[in-house]
Amino acid sequence: MKAITLLGSTGSIGTQTLDILQQHPEAFRLVGIAAGRNVDLLAQQVRQFHPQIVAICDQTQTAALKAAIADVDPQPIVVAGEAGVVEVARYGDAEAVVTGIVGCAGLLPTLAAIEAGKDIALANKETLIAAGPVVLPLVERHGVKLLPADSEHSAIFQCLQGVPEGGLRRILLTASGGAFRDWPVERLPQVTVADALKHPNWSMGRKITIDSATLMNKGLEVIEAHYLFGLDYDHIDIVIHPQSIIHSLIEVQDTSMLAQLGWPDMRLPLLYALSWPERLYTDWEPLDLVKAGSLTFREPDHAKYPCMELAYAAGRVGGTMTAVLNAANEQAVSLFIEEQVQFLDIPRLIEQICERHRADLRCQPRLEDILWADSWAREQVVVASQSLTASTYVSLA
Amino acid sequence: MKAITLLGSTGSIGTQTLDILQQHPEAFRLVGIAAGRNVDLLAQQVRQFHPQIVAICDQTQTAALKAAIADVDPQPIVVAGEAGVVEVARYGDAEAVVTGIVGCAGLLPTLAAIEAGKDIALANKETLIAAGPVVLPLVERHGVKLLPADSEHSAIFQCLQGVPEGGLRRILLTASGGAFRDWPVERLPQVTVADALKHPNWSMGRKITIDSATLMNKGLEVIEAHYLFGLDYDHIDIVIHPQSIIHSLIEVQDTSMLAQLGWPDMRLPLLYALSWPERLYTDWEPLDLVKAGSLTFREPDHAKYPCMELAYAAGRVGGTMTAVLNAANEQAVSLFIEEQVQFLDIPRLIEQICERHRADLRCQPRLEDILWADSWAREQVVVASQSLTASTYVSLA
Repeated sequence: MKAITLLGSTGSIGTQTLDILQQHPEAFRLVGIAAGRNVDLLAQQVRQFHPQIVAICDQTQTAALKAAIADVDPQPIVVAGEAGVVEVARYGDAEAVVTGIVGCAGLLPTLAAIEAGKDIALANKETLIAAGPVVLPLVERHGVKLLPADSEHSAIFQCLQGVPEGGLRRILLTASGGAFRDWPVERLPQVTVADALKHPNWSMGRKITIDSATLMNKGLEVIEAHYLFGLDYDHIDIVIHPQSIIHSLIEVQDTSMLAQLGWPDMRLPLLYALSWPERLYTDWEPLDLVKAGSLTFREPDHAKYPCMELAYAAGRVGGTMTAVLNAANEQAVSLFIEEQVQFLDIPRLIEQICERHRADLRCQPRLEDILWADSWAREQVVVASQSLTASTYVSLA
Repeated sequence: MKAITLLGSTGSIGTQTLDILQQHPEAFRLVGIAAGRNVDLLAQQVRQFHPQIVAICDQTQTAALKAAIADVDPQPIVVAGEAGVVEVARYGDAEAVVTGIVGCAGLLPTLAAIEAGKDIALANKETLIAAGPVVLPLVERHGVKLLPADSEHSAIFQCLQGVPEGGLRRILLTASGGAFRDWPVERLPQVTVADALKHPNWSMGRKITIDSATLMNKGLEVIEAHYLFGLDYDHIDIVIHPQSIIHSLIEVQDTSMLAQLGWPDMRLPLLYALSWPERLYTDWEPLDLVKAGSLTFREPDHAKYPCMELAYAAGRVGGTMTAVLNAANEQAVSLFIEEQVQFLDIPRLIEQICERHRADLRCQPRLEDILWADSWAREQVVVASQSLTASTYVSLA
């Protein structure tokens, strides 16, 4: 029986993780749980899974949580605030911590869990994209495992299981191509928020659906793959695979390729991150290749997806540049969703901010450098968006 | 450096194996080599690779071989006949023996190599299809490895590397569909030998190309997979995949599927059987999924491919039945190539002979039972073909 702690239990990753724990009570035991502010759902989860410790990040909800679980026996320890989440992350005998907290808020608890010697089921992408240069040495020092819990990196991780040290030659990340896969480049200036939110295969949050339309999601995954699997950027490629059946591939030294396939279902990579190296039985619907139809592949159109290039460029620079890329992208996407900027302003803003960041790069970043770069990039995007919008409209006129 | 012995060095498997050894002199060393009767090529191979022992199966060629390599220094030991091939198979410090001898002639040397504690790079399908019940206990007793060297089983073996004991749930063998993939069933009675020899993807010998047109090759691979990977026949399926890019797939307990992909090239599985568990660098052309185009899949048409069903049925019976199936198929295909019987007589003959064999099945077969069943089935096919041909023509009239 594997002891698990779950950070971000009321979000999408969190509820799917608990769904897995519920289906495999013989395999997993919940040690700690942390959520943001959804007291009702968190209380219900505490009732069902009886963790030893529970954190609510929003301290104003502490009393409400305590009241909601007053009759639970035995009573869990209740902690609150960001410090509370960190406490849950490092608590007790949990062997693995699922990091389902989005954004840089997930960073400190993840570092705490690593320092406490726990494996990380990695569902928070900032951990590596923004903080890879800080996280990796820590992972090595404490001898813990980073277990990817997203579809693409899990596919690579699964394929890599039988590959000896040094056997990996190339990673091929598959991309659905997002909402504008079949749009001509010329139509992109007119894209609306509603257009960009129509993802062909996966049902996801708004931010990640926009990232999928710009292919920034894939660019960010390239950076994550670089940190997870240790390949340089020349050996990590992207291919458009509209059906999202092959979740990614690897090429090994003898040119053999290995792929992982399945219906699009986030639970599969989550389960593997939890059960690794075992394979637990599930009654989920297995992939039927005949039903899946043709699997097709095409090169990503560089003119259509400038964000992809920006991600490669930032990754090659390294240091705090990927934190800046990620933060600038989040802020630009957020402005686009609020209809403050246009779709094509997203790469324009990111490029501007990354270019400005070029000066102060050399040193190996510390955590505070990364957090600073993250805030700086967000502010800069807001400022730049105002002048950019004006000039953009001029240039488009 | 891995020490290798090669049986059947002048055939297709043999020359491709030596091609690999030539490309990786730092990784492999040739201990022994055996061929049938092609003295010129064998002598040339001895000159190039300097084995310690060489066998020529055709004893009438012994003097010619000795003369052809008289100036080679140091002189290898020269042996001859079937006993000579067995001697090479068990000779010296070879860690693995590549069994590239076709047919039941490969069986005795393979058993000798296993008894000498050598791993087997399995390129002789009779080893398991005819003699699985004899070979597997021997493999276990001597603690050696069976390393599949054909495309499909190698694909499964590659995918299985990272899968824990008990993790495998299903095997999915891909089949090109052969020459009649796109023919309507109604046209099959008129099939000529020339029609059947047109394989869409792989360039292979005549016998195997006909097996590909009847899908018997895939039926035989199902039996081989059963013995190699220990799954029952309900969990080994066949899917038509016309492009032959995915070489086979596995489904694991959590429903995840893993696949191995590549251009059709027999050297890749051969290399992996030799280098396992390592991955050696090659400069072969890597698979380009965009260039490969669409990957498609369809259910095999049971009416079109009765041989497939016959193989499943024989496999489920077990014992000597698969030896009978294999021998009856070889004889029937040979009669078809000689234009003695029609294309659709191939499954008819196999079915008849397998039905007659039903009586004496119960006991665990010994090697002599298998060899007897093999000869018996061949004779029976010849006899049956004479009466069958007459009645077939009546029924078709």
